[in-house]
Amino acid sequence: MSRIRLGMVGGGTGAFIGAIHRIAARMDGEFELVAGALSSDAARAAASAEELGIRSYNSFEDMAREEAGRADGVEAVAIVTPNNLHAAPAIAFLQAGIHVICDKPLAATQEQAQEIANAVRASSAKFFLTHNYCAMPMVREARALVQEGRLGEIRLVQAEYLQGWLTDPAAGKQAEWRTDPARSGAGAIGDIGTHAWQLAQFVTGMTPGHLSADLSSMVAGRAVDDDARIALRYAGGAKGGLWASQVATGQENGLSLRIFGSEAGLEWKLQDCERLMLFPKNGPAQMHTRTQDRSLSFRTPPGHPEGYLEGFANLYRDIAAIIRGDDAAQTRVPGLEDALSGMAFIAAAQASSRRDGAWVEV
Amino acid sequence: MSRIRLGMVGGGTGAFIGAIHRIAARMDGEFELVAGALSSDAARAAASAEELGIRSYNSFEDMAREEAGRADGVEAVAIVTPNNLHAAPAIAFLQAGIHVICDKPLAATQEQAQEIANAVRASSAKFFLTHNYCAMPMVREARALVQEGRLGEIRLVQAEYLQGWLTDPAAGKQAEWRTDPARSGAGAIGDIGTHAWQLAQFVTGMTPGHLSADLSSMVAGRAVDDDARIALRYAGGAKGGLWASQVATGQENGLSLRIFGSEAGLEWKLQDCERLMLFPKNGPAQMHTRTQDRSLSFRTPPGHPEGYLEGFANLYRDIAAIIRGDDAAQTRVPGLEDALSGMAFIAAAQASSRRDGAWVEV
Amino acid sequence: MSRIRLGMVGGGTGAFIGAIHRIAARMDGEFELVAGALSSDAARAAASAEELGIRSYNSFEDMAREEAGRADGVEAVAIVTPNNLHAAPAIAFLQAGIHVICDKPLAATQEQAQEIANAVRASSAKFFLTHNYCAMPMVREARALVQEGRLGEIRLVQAEYLQGWLTDPAAGKQAEWRTDPARSGAGAIGDIGTHAWQLAQFVTGMTPGHLSADLSSMVAGRAVDDDARIALRYAGGAKGGLWASQVATGQENGLSLRIFGSEAGLEWKLQDCERLMLFPKNGPAQMHTRTQDRSLSFRTPPGHPEGYLEGFANLYRDIAAIIRGDDAAQTRVPGLEDALSGMAFIAAAQASSRRDGAWVEV
Amino acid sequence: MSRIRLGMVGGGTGAFIGAIHRIAARMDGEFELVAGALSSDAARAAASAEELGIRSYNSFEDMAREEAGRADGVEAVAIVTPNNLHAAPAIAFLQAGIHVICDKPLAATQEQAQEIANAVRASSAKFFLTHNYCAMPMVREARALVQEGRLGEIRLVQAEYLQGWLTDPAAGKQAEWRTDPARSGAGAIGDIGTHAWQLAQFVTGMTPGHLSADLSSMVAGRAVDDDARIALRYAGGAKGGLWASQVATGQENGLSLRIFGSEAGLEWKLQDCERLMLFPKNGPAQMHTRTQDRSLSFRTPPGHPEGYLEGFANLYRDIAAIIRGDDAAQTRVPGLEDALSGMAFIAAAQASSRRDGAWVEV
Repeated sequence: MSRIRLGMVGGGTGAFIGAIHRIAARMDGEFELVAGALSSDAARAAASAEELGIRSYNSFEDMAREEAGRADGVEAVAIVTPNNLHAAPAIAFLQAGIHVICDKPLAATQEQAQEIANAVRASSAKFFLTHNYCAMPMVREARALVQEGRLGEIRLVQAEYLQGWLTDPAAGKQAEWRTDPARSGAGAIGDIGTHAWQLAQFVTGMTPGHLSADLSSMVAGRAVDDDARIALRYAGGAKGGLWASQVATGQENGLSLRIFGSEAGLEWKLQDCERLMLFPKNGPAQMHTRTQDRSLSFRTPPGHPEGYLEGFANLYRDIAAIIRGDDAAQTRVPGLEDALSGMAFIAAAQASSRRDGAWVEV
Repeated sequence: MSRIRLGMVGGGTGAFIGAIHRIAARMDGEFELVAGALSSDAARAAASAEELGIRSYNSFEDMAREEAGRADGVEAVAIVTPNNLHAAPAIAFLQAGIHVICDKPLAATQEQAQEIANAVRASSAKFFLTHNYCAMPMVREARALVQEGRLGEIRLVQAEYLQGWLTDPAAGKQAEWRTDPARSGAGAIGDIGTHAWQLAQFVTGMTPGHLSADLSSMVAGRAVDDDARIALRYAGGAKGGLWASQVATGQENGLSLRIFGSEAGLEWKLQDCERLMLFPKNGPAQMHTRTQDRSLSFRTPPGHPEGYLEGFANLYRDIAAIIRGDDAAQTRVPGLEDALSGMAFIAAAQASSRRDGAWVEV
Repeated sequence: MSRIRLGMVGGGTGAFIGAIHRIAARMDGEFELVAGALSSDAARAAASAEELGIRSYNSFEDMAREEAGRADGVEAVAIVTPNNLHAAPAIAFLQAGIHVICDKPLAATQEQAQEIANAVRASSAKFFLTHNYCAMPMVREARALVQEGRLGEIRLVQAEYLQGWLTDPAAGKQAEWRTDPARSGAGAIGDIGTHAWQLAQFVTGMTPGHLSADLSSMVAGRAVDDDARIALRYAGGAKGGLWASQVATGQENGLSLRIFGSEAGLEWKLQDCERLMLFPKNGPAQMHTRTQDRSLSFRTPPGHPEGYLEGFANLYRDIAAIIRGDDAAQTRVPGLEDALSGMAFIAAAQASSRRDGAWVEV
Repeated sequence: MSRIRLGMVGGGTGAFIGAIHRIAARMDGEFELVAGALSSDAARAAASAEELGIRSYNSFEDMAREEAGRADGVEAVAIVTPNNLHAAPAIAFLQAGIHVICDKPLAATQEQAQEIANAVRASSAKFFLTHNYCAMPMVREARALVQEGRLGEIRLVQAEYLQGWLTDPAAGKQAEWRTDPARSGAGAIGDIGTHAWQLAQFVTGMTPGHLSADLSSMVAGRAVDDDARIALRYAGGAKGGLWASQVATGQENGLSLRIFGSEAGLEWKLQDCERLMLFPKNGPAQMHTRTQDRSLSFRTPPGHPEGYLEGFANLYRDIAAIIRGDDAAQTRVPGLEDALSGMAFIAAAQASSRRDGAWVEV
């Protein structure tokens, strides 16, 4: 089977998430990166493209237009720019009929999000959002357990995403744009809170109807939230909590999910991502590993640790399958609906926090 | 040194916490149980006392009066009745000049709490509240690290106490009174939430000024809260969360505390109670064990697991020291102030929850 | 029920294991310490006894004779002296018809061991050896799982006991006698190796027929082994390993046991002693806690950590039951047979090591 | 930089390790798979090659000859056949001047190993052996800590590799050749024991001079060892143990390494591969993560779990660097010397076990 031709917007030398997308796209041999508008700095764009051995463009507009016209042009494009620079290229490629793989969150503003949504709906091309954690094997196994009813009626949901890297005033390229509200649109809540939001939604299949949020900026002079504590209420009476922080000192990348139902509870932690604990109401707790995993989202036998990159690659593998017509994979890959849900979450959290934690509808 | 003569109110055969108090009092040989009004059922009281080889009373009133008049009467009394039955015996013994060791929370109502407080203030006898977890070695070590400034300025506090034993409608003696508002005064928030509240306060040395609470009864027909999610705000800008639940299916006794400051974070979990993780802003995380412990609140070398009973016994050992005049131990043992703080926490949480999570002053 | 009157030989102020025995004996209120020959130093013996409020003797001979003659004399005696001083008092008390609770290992030499054995067989009194770890709830649960056949045919056994406290040349009272061959008779192999040996035997119900040992003294000038690596062969074809070390730097008290059979494996670690992992051949691993425990060897609900002292106290509680005539408890408490097995293990390991690891019969 | 053209011998559809090599080679974009003799079955070879979009050969002899003659022929070849089929293709490609990346262990017999060694020495091409675990970040960090002297003088080394997948009589393609002595040359000792051997050697920088082995076949009818217990002696007085088993029921892929020295100990476990515990003689244990890692052998920030495939890819990345002339990388990649050491280990273990565990020189 021939590889899907992939382009990239952003992700020049020194970028973080662009390199991740490239590894993920490459891992299973499903994609071939062939073109990029890798930087707004023309020299850097050209140098980065040369290093990667791909066609280089100075602007995404040129790239969308020219690639759409080539017989061997890109079939899909990964957009890995700061949040405020997602909309314009996404719309350009969607209008050119090229599939868009967009990094999260969808955009820096609700207006940009709406424009992307309109473009997705008007386009024949597909749209994907890279909430990568939901593609990890034991997360998919957690969803399977919930869907089978192993937890009974879900009562409690707790999602956490704790990092400590912004404990001090931001320094470095990654920190700068993330703490600039014009470029990010939100702080911890957008950067990692949306991951936790999507993870809880993916596994439970439930979306909270209301939330109450307390967003803080713990570091003097910081213009965006670096800590977000959010209470969640679900329509059926379940309650939840979401805690996202980038000032949780010494925590590297502490994503976790706990769910408690009338029959069993479960716990998953990114730092021990190959194990899923299931706590039946009675009897011993069970440690599920890939031996029990029904997602088949892996490449190695159980006990050979897979992690972040493999999860990200699962997403790319499924995206390839969808592009090639496998509808089943669509149930697993975040798309426009998830993207808009994340934006609604950000908006509701910011609104609630401005109103001192009043409950607001999502 | 002769043993302190101890009495007990409640704690007859089949009781849970009474037996715990007896083991804790006995562990270091500092106390000798000599008398009890062990049950409101006269026959059961007598049988329980005979089994223990102690003087038996049919009522705490008789016991307080007679023991106060004996040369070899009890010097201290442990009150291990349901919450609504703390006040009357506590007051009787305090008025008789006998020290009171009271189980938590202080009382079922704010009025009862106030009456006890008045009696404590009017008495020459001392009053202790058995928040036992704060007497565990690594909790005391955590407090020492905070006091030394190892965490810098505290920004985030997260206390959790998760149990699953009330996942189904309550059954059994322990569950019945705890879910009867007349006897308990509160559900999870009183039974275990106050432990989490006191633990956070003990380690940080800080008391939240305001809270916002969402109390739930997840099991149909339950008249008290079985899940409590509470957001905390401290005067200096720190934020916190407290989650207490008795419907966290499959969780046995999941008490934990996380604190993040400008210089380091720390984490302690009851289920791994002999280890305290310290996360400096830079450099490797440190696993503190009793080798680093400065509390000297233990009986065995590091690596010989001590736990719940030893912690409880630490409290009794310190109470003995205080009774014998060691003022230094007073800084470590919860007393009236902690007891009233716990009651204020319950009241504020119930008030906030009734007002849909409005922020209320504690 | 009246308390059993207990005496103690050794265990004066500053001793380690004597204090442990006293706490264990006290925990459940089954014993009352009433007399002791606590030290070979008369002044220290007297001072220690006064502090404990018990009758003091200058020699165990006096104590055995006089206590045997008193109506309220001791019914049992705990012997907590260095290994070379077990035999004489054990024999004296056994001859006086007083039950003996002896610390492990049985003796410093095979000759002493044989003399004790003769005295036990000639006496109406009972003999107990305090291999305390086998009395911990999840160890007893492990044995129950093996006895039920949950592991199938046992193939592999691995016991480890790793400490680091003798990494440097010995300093302090505890280290001195343990590294003096005249007093200890063996190093790590006797002090902790016998614990591992007994633990494996207790859980599997199997005793190795042959072993091959490599004993080392890693610290210059040390006259006893501080590291012991031993291969084990069982009659039925199972193989095993036992590693005991006191130079495993930074390890506090790392006792563990792993067993693998044709149907399942299991793992237990002292540092996480309230959990027992069962690994079925197929299906998820199971985390057994006291919820699944059938030994009922505990005092608190699951999740309230119990540990070393509670395990030790389980032994004392069972010893009390045996003294009171409960034969069932005898299956759980180590006695003469276990004591002699431990001595045979030491002898075989030393013989094999002297012969460069030749296989020798145990 | 253009990609290095890679060929493959073995690794047709359904193979395990061939697919792993392909992912590892692809991960960093350093290699391009262009040709293969993927199966001894011509149809399967062709189908597999077509699926991968590469040139297909019916025999490695043809492939070596033709590729050597092409301007765009393979520069390196990965040999991923069963052990007994390593020698012939390795020699053919080495003679053709094509670099060889060979899976471990080197060969099924000492004779084959010697022939490969001769070919390596006679060739201008390079030879690599894929002991992938030594390329994982925290393993490299462990080596760095040892090299810095953080452990002091090394006294004790314990390597374990426990799997349970051969608990029952072998079934399936992977199990069949591994338990056929003609094809594998050895059982657990060759398949996973050599990994443990190399891991200990890599981290400590020390090779045992003598060993004593007890190899077992626990499953009836099995013609190779499935459990290997090996005692190690190092020239300087250090002792070690190596336990490799494929009948450790319920264990997935339990590779671990513990080292204790005069100043500190360390522990690493594959199942928690992103953490390295360092136990200083005094002071708290340290949990090293990639924050402390000096190997820079990773692609993501600390806390984004990397694992088996990333480690394997580290090896391929370093192999690419070596091929391109980076001599520094050679210190990190196993080559002929490691390959021969592994074969010597197998031979010594088998010889010792045949002589009932006699100490033999390695």
